Amino acid sequence: MKKIEVIQNVLEANEAIASRNRQLLDKHKIFAVNIMSSPGAGKTSLILQTLARLKGKLNIAVIEGDVASTVDAEKVQSEAKAVVQINTRNMPESCSLMAAMIESALKDTPLNNIDLILIENVGNLICPSEFALGEHKRVVISSLPEGDDKPIKYPLIFVDADAVIINKMDFLPHVDFDIAAFRRSIAGLNPKAEVFELSCKTGEGIEKWCSWVLEQIETTIRR
Amino acid sequence: MKKIEVIQNVLEANEAIASRNRQLLDKHKIFAVNIMSSPGAGKTSLILQTLARLKGKLNIAVIEGDVASTVDAEKVQSEAKAVVQINTRNMPESCSLMAAMIESALKDTPLNNIDLILIENVGNLICPSEFALGEHKRVVISSLPEGDDKPIKYPLIFVDADAVIINKMDFLPHVDFDIAAFRRSIAGLNPKAEVFELSCKTGEGIEKWCSWVLEQIETTIRR
Repeated sequence: MKKIEVIQNVLEANEAIASRNRQLLDKHKIFAVNIMSSPGAGKTSLILQTLARLKGKLNIAVIEGDVASTVDAEKVQSEAKAVVQINTRNMPESCSLMAAMIESALKDTPLNNIDLILIENVGNLICPSEFALGEHKRVVISSLPEGDDKPIKYPLIFVDADAVIINKMDFLPHVDFDIAAFRRSIAGLNPKAEVFELSCKTGEGIEKWCSWVLEQIETTIRR
Repeated sequence: MKKIEVIQNVLEANEAIASRNRQLLDKHKIFAVNIMSSPGAGKTSLILQTLARLKGKLNIAVIEGDVASTVDAEKVQSEAKAVVQINTRNMPESCSLMAAMIESALKDTPLNNIDLILIENVGNLICPSEFALGEHKRVVISSLPEGDDKPIKYPLIFVDADAVIINKMDFLPHVDFDIAAFRRSIAGLNPKAEVFELSCKTGEGIEKWCSWVLEQIETTIRR
């Protein structure tokens, strides 16, 4: 019983900090997106494509979560206004970003000069579903080589997503992935989720995704 | 501080149960392999290929770990001597199998009639590295579409692996994956790990992997 109580406290404490983060973001009219997926599904590639399309229109910061290393932060460094790396290896939860990590990262971010923060969570389909960060929207990426059964096997992360991205569409000829079945699983778990089919490699579908981000900023932050 | 103490207790309790599981397996001369990877890297496919090659030589049971669903257990059911499904969704740790879950699964496994247990862990490159299950060997699968940087970003799971499998070798023409760089990362983290390149789709390299499993059984269990 003791462990469950403690976990409950951690989740409650996380919610309180997430809510403070959200207030800080709203005060600065900054829109924040929490991007989650399995390792290698394309979080960094989506961020790079989004930076390429939107950096002329918005000042964008990136918060990079990883267990170890700074390889992703290095990839986005030249395109973003600001990049903050969080390494979770020695933190109490290494399998997800938590609100306290974002609170600390926001202290290193030039908030007066930013419109959009893209938060790359740790590559994991389980833990990140438990921890709100203060973000405005939650996005989950599934990529074709992972198979179309991920929503059935890892339902919680899909239930709370505002958008689900099917990435690596360029792999369609090489894999056995049933797009309609995947979409049915998402519709069953979370009928309100927007679903995007795209390829960060070829750029196919990126424009539609970026338009959605801009729309969300209009309706959420600039209303 | 309180949380860290509790986690320490959980890990110690897990070690004690893992050690009891190992004794039970050894008593029955059963060899157990803990198979870990990201979601969709090919754990179930590796199990299916291993069953196909070795079921004439060994009696094989499968323990399937998943957050939710029985889709993988259903896939292996017809080929294995016994299949036990563990769903971690409502357990204290949902992001990994733990020794207590295996202890309970072993009660449902016909131990007198089994030579090899293949344990499919939850799809995750972080949490499973913390929890010994009582297994004889730990195997991590990385698949080409995930990218060659996984050992750098999720080092802990690779550090303790006895074998690392590079799966989906049939994707090599379609992805930007540097096999030599991946092997160098593994050699840096864990020079003793065996590395196998294979494709569960085409069957390429499966024989070498299965020979290794047979060798390990000879030297570990039947010595």
